[in-house]
Amino acid sequence: MKNRYGIGVDAGGTFLKATAATPEGKVLCSLSTPTRPDLGPKAFVASTAELVERIEKRLGGRSPGLCVAVAGDVDVQRGVLRRSPNLESYEGFPLRKALQNGLKRPVSLHNDANMAAWGAYAVELKRKLPKVLVLTMGTGVGGGAVLDGKLLTGATGTAAEFGHMRIYPNGYPCNCGAHGCLEAHAGTYGLRRTVGELLAEKKSTSRLRNKDFTPKDVADAANAGDNLAKEAWRRVGRALGLGVVNLVYTFNPDAIVFAGGLSRAGALYMDTVKATADAESFRGPFGHLKLLIAKRPDLGSVGAAVYALDA
Amino acid sequence: MKNRYGIGVDAGGTFLKATAATPEGKVLCSLSTPTRPDLGPKAFVASTAELVERIEKRLGGRSPGLCVAVAGDVDVQRGVLRRSPNLESYEGFPLRKALQNGLKRPVSLHNDANMAAWGAYAVELKRKLPKVLVLTMGTGVGGGAVLDGKLLTGATGTAAEFGHMRIYPNGYPCNCGAHGCLEAHAGTYGLRRTVGELLAEKKSTSRLRNKDFTPKDVADAANAGDNLAKEAWRRVGRALGLGVVNLVYTFNPDAIVFAGGLSRAGALYMDTVKATADAESFRGPFGHLKLLIAKRPDLGSVGAAVYALDA
Repeated sequence: MKNRYGIGVDAGGTFLKATAATPEGKVLCSLSTPTRPDLGPKAFVASTAELVERIEKRLGGRSPGLCVAVAGDVDVQRGVLRRSPNLESYEGFPLRKALQNGLKRPVSLHNDANMAAWGAYAVELKRKLPKVLVLTMGTGVGGGAVLDGKLLTGATGTAAEFGHMRIYPNGYPCNCGAHGCLEAHAGTYGLRRTVGELLAEKKSTSRLRNKDFTPKDVADAANAGDNLAKEAWRRVGRALGLGVVNLVYTFNPDAIVFAGGLSRAGALYMDTVKATADAESFRGPFGHLKLLIAKRPDLGSVGAAVYALDA
Repeated sequence: MKNRYGIGVDAGGTFLKATAATPEGKVLCSLSTPTRPDLGPKAFVASTAELVERIEKRLGGRSPGLCVAVAGDVDVQRGVLRRSPNLESYEGFPLRKALQNGLKRPVSLHNDANMAAWGAYAVELKRKLPKVLVLTMGTGVGGGAVLDGKLLTGATGTAAEFGHMRIYPNGYPCNCGAHGCLEAHAGTYGLRRTVGELLAEKKSTSRLRNKDFTPKDVADAANAGDNLAKEAWRRVGRALGLGVVNLVYTFNPDAIVFAGGLSRAGALYMDTVKATADAESFRGPFGHLKLLIAKRPDLGSVGAAVYALDA
């Protein structure tokens, strides 16, 4: 066996992606297959086993462990999905146990943003900073925390749901049912709503008017000087800045890493995030903080692969 | 030596109080002396040494360690007060080292709310719940967290400053310089401001009008049926409820314990806190949560005494 490797499985609603990586996070192989949640959890176990088998055939050797990362509320102790919008048909099923039986090795099951935090801590930052938080910015905003080499999971596996911190108590409606959550203002649907409200507020010459715009359109518009789009990103940055302020008072971390699709547009809002944090007069914990944009786009899957070896 | 005991020193701006307690938190002796911060840190070390000597003369034996709890921002690693409104003259002085030299034993120096968290975890809850947060409600609102038997201190000692979570982004001014912090709405000055605004809003027959009221007056008025006072406590409860929501999404704790002077009025706002938490539709981490009011009024000092043995 040339390389020792762990396998991380990123279980999205559409694709199941298995990544094999070394303890340092070097990706050796990555394969995917449709998830087909309509076929139920047993088919999921079979598809996962098949991916693992294909990887091991290709790489040789045997991965000592597997870690499955899923969007949603994971009961880490019992290895069960408590709530997962993309994989509803697996909710309540003893998924970890079935995977362990099927794959004959230790399996862990975690929230995908928690695995992105492990990727940020162990791979991107090479375990050099002991207290690392992550915000995964996609449709929703996920969170994860690694404190002194330990993943923060909480009493029932739901810790670090930073996207549901209340930022504006009477703010935009969130997919969770509440109002004013961080993700309702800083996830892609928060961004879309912000642009929509700005367009409705005033007669605008923005190139985003009368258009079914994507986050990339909003980024392109801002980069081309569109004032409305720039203001939308500032508002995203302001919401993120308030989230960062709360996280700093709570954890006093070494670093907060922005990951996920919307982190690619970080240059458009990071100044506002920093200005919001810099406005705090209680300086102690802010002077120490590093605000970083993830360099790797695959922190979740590579984090899961490395975690499979660390767990 | 009959009892093994630790000594906790609660260093307030007015009084220095030393408490000797067993590992289980039974208080064996408690002595105090004026702090006199005007005399500088060396006088503080001498006063502390004298209190410890008097305790050991009375109890016999020798306490193996000492823990000093201070309001403010403590550099836990270096053992230095970074910022302490009541003890400004000690800021920057190598206090822990001076105490260790003066007392010839290990000394730790911590934020007082962190020690209240240790008291809640180790004494009040007898180490039975692994993830315990505390909110200390006095003039300000302090915070502390114990996760799996470890005190959360953060990268530079400033973690768990829950009183400075932003609850209402354009809310009341906070003593820290920001607006809308939890303590600006739920500490005693937040309560006073809330009552003041309610009195200004409308012609009121409240018994609090034209009066320099204390928090106890507001509690007495509410208990006597005064509607304005009851509304003020509901607003405190609403701010605390939003704080609790953020803490639950962040830590997914087993319990949050309310301590400090204003926790005595808990019956006047706890229903609102619970209703705010119960309104969350993302139920996972809330079903598990215990919201408790501290039974002991001395969690900070007894927590420091026990921590002196645990550290």
